[in-house]
Amino acid sequence: MRTVDLRSDTVTMPTEEMRQAMFRAEVGDDVYREDPTVMALEELGAAMMGKEAGLFLTSGTMGNQVAAMAHTKKSDEIICEMESHIYYYEVAGLACLAGAQVRPVIGDRGVMTAAAIRGAIRPIDIHAPETALICVENTHNRAGGTCYPLGELAAIRRLADEFHIPVHMDGARIFNAAVAQGVAVAEIAQHADTVQFCLSKGLAAPVGSLLVGTRPYIEKARRFRKMLGGGMRQAGIVAAAGIVALKTMVDRLAEDHTNARLLGEAIAASGYVIDMSTVQTNIVIFSTDGLKTDAPAFVAMLKDRGIKANAFGERRVRMVTHFGVDRADIDYTVDVLAKLKQECS
Amino acid sequence: MRTVDLRSDTVTMPTEEMRQAMFRAEVGDDVYREDPTVMALEELGAAMMGKEAGLFLTSGTMGNQVAAMAHTKKSDEIICEMESHIYYYEVAGLACLAGAQVRPVIGDRGVMTAAAIRGAIRPIDIHAPETALICVENTHNRAGGTCYPLGELAAIRRLADEFHIPVHMDGARIFNAAVAQGVAVAEIAQHADTVQFCLSKGLAAPVGSLLVGTRPYIEKARRFRKMLGGGMRQAGIVAAAGIVALKTMVDRLAEDHTNARLLGEAIAASGYVIDMSTVQTNIVIFSTDGLKTDAPAFVAMLKDRGIKANAFGERRVRMVTHFGVDRADIDYTVDVLAKLKQECS
Amino acid sequence: MRTVDLRSDTVTMPTEEMRQAMFRAEVGDDVYREDPTVMALEELGAAMMGKEAGLFLTSGTMGNQVAAMAHTKKSDEIICEMESHIYYYEVAGLACLAGAQVRPVIGDRGVMTAAAIRGAIRPIDIHAPETALICVENTHNRAGGTCYPLGELAAIRRLADEFHIPVHMDGARIFNAAVAQGVAVAEIAQHADTVQFCLSKGLAAPVGSLLVGTRPYIEKARRFRKMLGGGMRQAGIVAAAGIVALKTMVDRLAEDHTNARLLGEAIAASGYVIDMSTVQTNIVIFSTDGLKTDAPAFVAMLKDRGIKANAFGERRVRMVTHFGVDRADIDYTVDVLAKLKQECS
Amino acid sequence: MRTVDLRSDTVTMPTEEMRQAMFRAEVGDDVYREDPTVMALEELGAAMMGKEAGLFLTSGTMGNQVAAMAHTKKSDEIICEMESHIYYYEVAGLACLAGAQVRPVIGDRGVMTAAAIRGAIRPIDIHAPETALICVENTHNRAGGTCYPLGELAAIRRLADEFHIPVHMDGARIFNAAVAQGVAVAEIAQHADTVQFCLSKGLAAPVGSLLVGTRPYIEKARRFRKMLGGGMRQAGIVAAAGIVALKTMVDRLAEDHTNARLLGEAIAASGYVIDMSTVQTNIVIFSTDGLKTDAPAFVAMLKDRGIKANAFGERRVRMVTHFGVDRADIDYTVDVLAKLKQECS
Repeated sequence: MRTVDLRSDTVTMPTEEMRQAMFRAEVGDDVYREDPTVMALEELGAAMMGKEAGLFLTSGTMGNQVAAMAHTKKSDEIICEMESHIYYYEVAGLACLAGAQVRPVIGDRGVMTAAAIRGAIRPIDIHAPETALICVENTHNRAGGTCYPLGELAAIRRLADEFHIPVHMDGARIFNAAVAQGVAVAEIAQHADTVQFCLSKGLAAPVGSLLVGTRPYIEKARRFRKMLGGGMRQAGIVAAAGIVALKTMVDRLAEDHTNARLLGEAIAASGYVIDMSTVQTNIVIFSTDGLKTDAPAFVAMLKDRGIKANAFGERRVRMVTHFGVDRADIDYTVDVLAKLKQECS
Repeated sequence: MRTVDLRSDTVTMPTEEMRQAMFRAEVGDDVYREDPTVMALEELGAAMMGKEAGLFLTSGTMGNQVAAMAHTKKSDEIICEMESHIYYYEVAGLACLAGAQVRPVIGDRGVMTAAAIRGAIRPIDIHAPETALICVENTHNRAGGTCYPLGELAAIRRLADEFHIPVHMDGARIFNAAVAQGVAVAEIAQHADTVQFCLSKGLAAPVGSLLVGTRPYIEKARRFRKMLGGGMRQAGIVAAAGIVALKTMVDRLAEDHTNARLLGEAIAASGYVIDMSTVQTNIVIFSTDGLKTDAPAFVAMLKDRGIKANAFGERRVRMVTHFGVDRADIDYTVDVLAKLKQECS
Repeated sequence: MRTVDLRSDTVTMPTEEMRQAMFRAEVGDDVYREDPTVMALEELGAAMMGKEAGLFLTSGTMGNQVAAMAHTKKSDEIICEMESHIYYYEVAGLACLAGAQVRPVIGDRGVMTAAAIRGAIRPIDIHAPETALICVENTHNRAGGTCYPLGELAAIRRLADEFHIPVHMDGARIFNAAVAQGVAVAEIAQHADTVQFCLSKGLAAPVGSLLVGTRPYIEKARRFRKMLGGGMRQAGIVAAAGIVALKTMVDRLAEDHTNARLLGEAIAASGYVIDMSTVQTNIVIFSTDGLKTDAPAFVAMLKDRGIKANAFGERRVRMVTHFGVDRADIDYTVDVLAKLKQECS
Repeated sequence: MRTVDLRSDTVTMPTEEMRQAMFRAEVGDDVYREDPTVMALEELGAAMMGKEAGLFLTSGTMGNQVAAMAHTKKSDEIICEMESHIYYYEVAGLACLAGAQVRPVIGDRGVMTAAAIRGAIRPIDIHAPETALICVENTHNRAGGTCYPLGELAAIRRLADEFHIPVHMDGARIFNAAVAQGVAVAEIAQHADTVQFCLSKGLAAPVGSLLVGTRPYIEKARRFRKMLGGGMRQAGIVAAAGIVALKTMVDRLAEDHTNARLLGEAIAASGYVIDMSTVQTNIVIFSTDGLKTDAPAFVAMLKDRGIKANAFGERRVRMVTHFGVDRADIDYTVDVLAKLKQECS
């Protein structure tokens, strides 16, 4: 039986070129700032995003948490989307590590409008925390890999400038957004003060994220990274794969998007409930509404047929296309889903 | 010109009986647990709420924050209503002091349904904080002094028991709820593990709140109160007024409710936009929609006419009836509002 | 049997004049900044200390914690004496509330030298927290009510200026220092950026402390006070006693010092181990070394004879003189101690 | 000119065998617990330490911080040595992340006696935090790589059991202790509930540490690791080097110890001030007392001669032997030091 792993693009395996690069990587003690490969990666990432400096971290979560710690002081408030990763999936780190409260805004398919953010900014009042950070997630995972329209980002930037509030972008999948929107990633990143993006996920590096921003900000973030234990020694080993990821893996994300679109359309054609307007990049979310089974049970049935997917709560199934999934995998999956629709109706 | 202060019931002045009681209060060092008046107040408050033990605190905010600190561990999540006081008005204390994240639920006129709360409880997952507390506000300030229906509270209690999550009631104005619903306050309090209620506000004591719950819980809370600096010495002075408040000021809240109702109906009759279904206790919130002025400007116009009220954002005005406001004050206010409606339309 | 309570000056009862002042106090809602008595107290306290502004708080602990929160940012380090109140007796609030780490310095009878503090200031290094606050306790409780020599305070001030680190003085008993050193309290306070001092303790007010400093600092502190729940409503009731305390109770501290000195000398004369060089104000600490009993048992024996004292660990006994203890009480205590020495040797 | 890097054993480069192992490593998504290499490393490490379970982390700092977070609740107190890494070098993480206060004990060459720890345990008192963790560092970095005598560890274990307080060992260099003391590492680890040890440093892996303890504890720690961003994806790449480190690099630490001993003895023979009793493993600390130069300037002079070392404050120099330093390097260093002694005296 064929095995197709559509749970997440985090399951991607390093490429042969990455393995070779890691094998040969020139390394040093990065806490002493002597690892040339880490430094090269940080510079490359910052340059691609159009920012002054970069910081290599072990994960997107560390990047987001360090970013929040460096942007806020204790008792501040952070605006982010109700289902955003930094708020939903990071074990309450914002409260526990940064001592900051979240003021969530409900987005439209993950996208917060500037108007909605404006309504969530606190007035100056002794009872109220200060709004110290706006965090946008692009693409938005739980909304189905949706992209922020560039116009909305520009509007958020203007709002942020009006209130002197920095903008952090959780760009774990920002390259998916850039490929889908057909723009350079720096065109997106220009609207944010700081961006975190992953080298793993769609880009297939085994480990790592980068946080980019101004040089003084990155120095501040470096201290918080050290506190969280993200100061690594010969980190150039893994950074080497990150360089390969940035240089060789970005363009091919288009394939993942094509596969996701095919998959989504076939799901719709099979009669499942799916909002195709959210299938913009490499994530496909559909509903089990109308079936005789709920999402966890449906996912178990898929697994019996060699297909791994994630249940999102009781009634939604998420599938993610990535480097480890080819067209034949998609065809197989489409086939299985068509049959399951019959069985479960 | 007549002066009417409708900003909040927090402006109430202590009664003559309270001043006498404070003057004569028998006191001791309460950190050593030797203040007989504080102990008497804590016992009285606990008994009225049907709980084992009580703790005297300097404010409702301290009561809520200490309650949250004692109920949660770092990185837990707290469910409360989107506009609840503990989340909206307490300077991000939940994050900063307890290290806990808020998962807000949008209520219907301040009331969270058990079903909505169920949807906000986190599954067990390494990415997710543990849901450790459900906090209900009764009456709900920003929703207009609305009461939790007893049936909904019972449903929340059953849900909480199902998931082994404690319920804390921010009952700053719980006596308003009890009077409005015509039940003993303990009938409401039975659905919560812990209740914080204020002796100031409608009950007119100058300073103080009580937190009630089980004896071991209150001992735990006492340590957090000490850390926040709420351990006072001869606190019996202020506690004495609290005893008078509980013994003499509860029943008269009905007058405040009558006054609020009269005020609200007159506001509606004058043609303002107001949702009378929220005017259940001593708070009246109406809108400046349809006027040529926004709420802050409208409040300034009221002030010029001797009437103090609070703007709630740009488009809402809040008025609160209390011990310091009599029928003649209401008549005067109604009159002024009727004239202002003409002027501003 | 005579009862003498030497456990702490916190047990002092309000004077008749204080009770009268509280009875008649003009009050208002202090969260709205409308309580004239609180404002008068804050101004009076600030003026006495030679600072711009003051903030009324419920306790010395709240004053210290709010001060630390306003002086530091998360992950900073605070230098204070190893046995200082803010570190030893405040339930780890510095870590839990401010997120700050303590770097303790061992003082000589409670007094940290500027040289020792210099050694504890951190270099700039990615592994090290920033030293953000120097906290001195004057008089020092656990060291026996010892005073900072003014020359040492001046040296600490110069050091602090050299490193741009603010100095906070836990002056819970600063008036005892001023009286003992025969200087105006402002002469001491000039060496600190902020001072917290108690109205209870030796000054006998039932409740309250003041934090003084620059106006912008105090506004910052006011927000943290609100977060901790220290924003009270008609707080003028207790503030009224504080004004009486500042106006009428300072000079009489000299009596407490005389009594402490008499007590200490008698203890020495009876053959107990005592370091008279620490008996500078109103605290007397002696050792149970050489007795057949330890401190807790010795304190119990005292209690059987009507004398309350505190055991400081296993081998030290603390006695504190105050407004509620007169010469006859001291004579009685001296007598009992002389007899106990015979019994326990 | 020869280059000798004696700054730290953190500068060690991965061996060829490690590079091969990383190149060939079988990997998976470790957040899903599907990385076979990570799991193998965790099992191997736990087995060597005699513990139930292990957790792979990016650094010793992360291991220590996660350990503290999992052992304590907010406002607890942690006992550790005054110059221990967890307290001195981890950016105040204990306060900022765990919300815990440190009660430092001054050790004898880094070793806290059980008696001294007993004196630092807090009594049960409303003013005092709870003592929730004893942390020992073995070997102790700032004291010069000193080992805990096994008898002292056993005494600490008994004390900890008496008070029901867990013991965490910062065993970043625990293998150095085991080799120096000629015992299996599990014989040391048996006295601690949890141990953190590094795969980098003397064992030369590029990145990583392990935290070991009971299975439920490790599951708790895993959540905190996730919060800090230590949940990595295809972490097997780096874990592969860790397995090689544990299997091939432990025994050779004896060479580093021999080199350190030779170096220390030569330093003593050249007339520097050095306490040879601290030269127990791979760290040599000597003083610049008696020289015409301070430590930073002396380190600069060494650097000009190709030798890298670290200044420890103003008057101490630290040299660390490791895999990247051979006998000829030591001979060269000894030579340079002998000459510098002449020049600087």
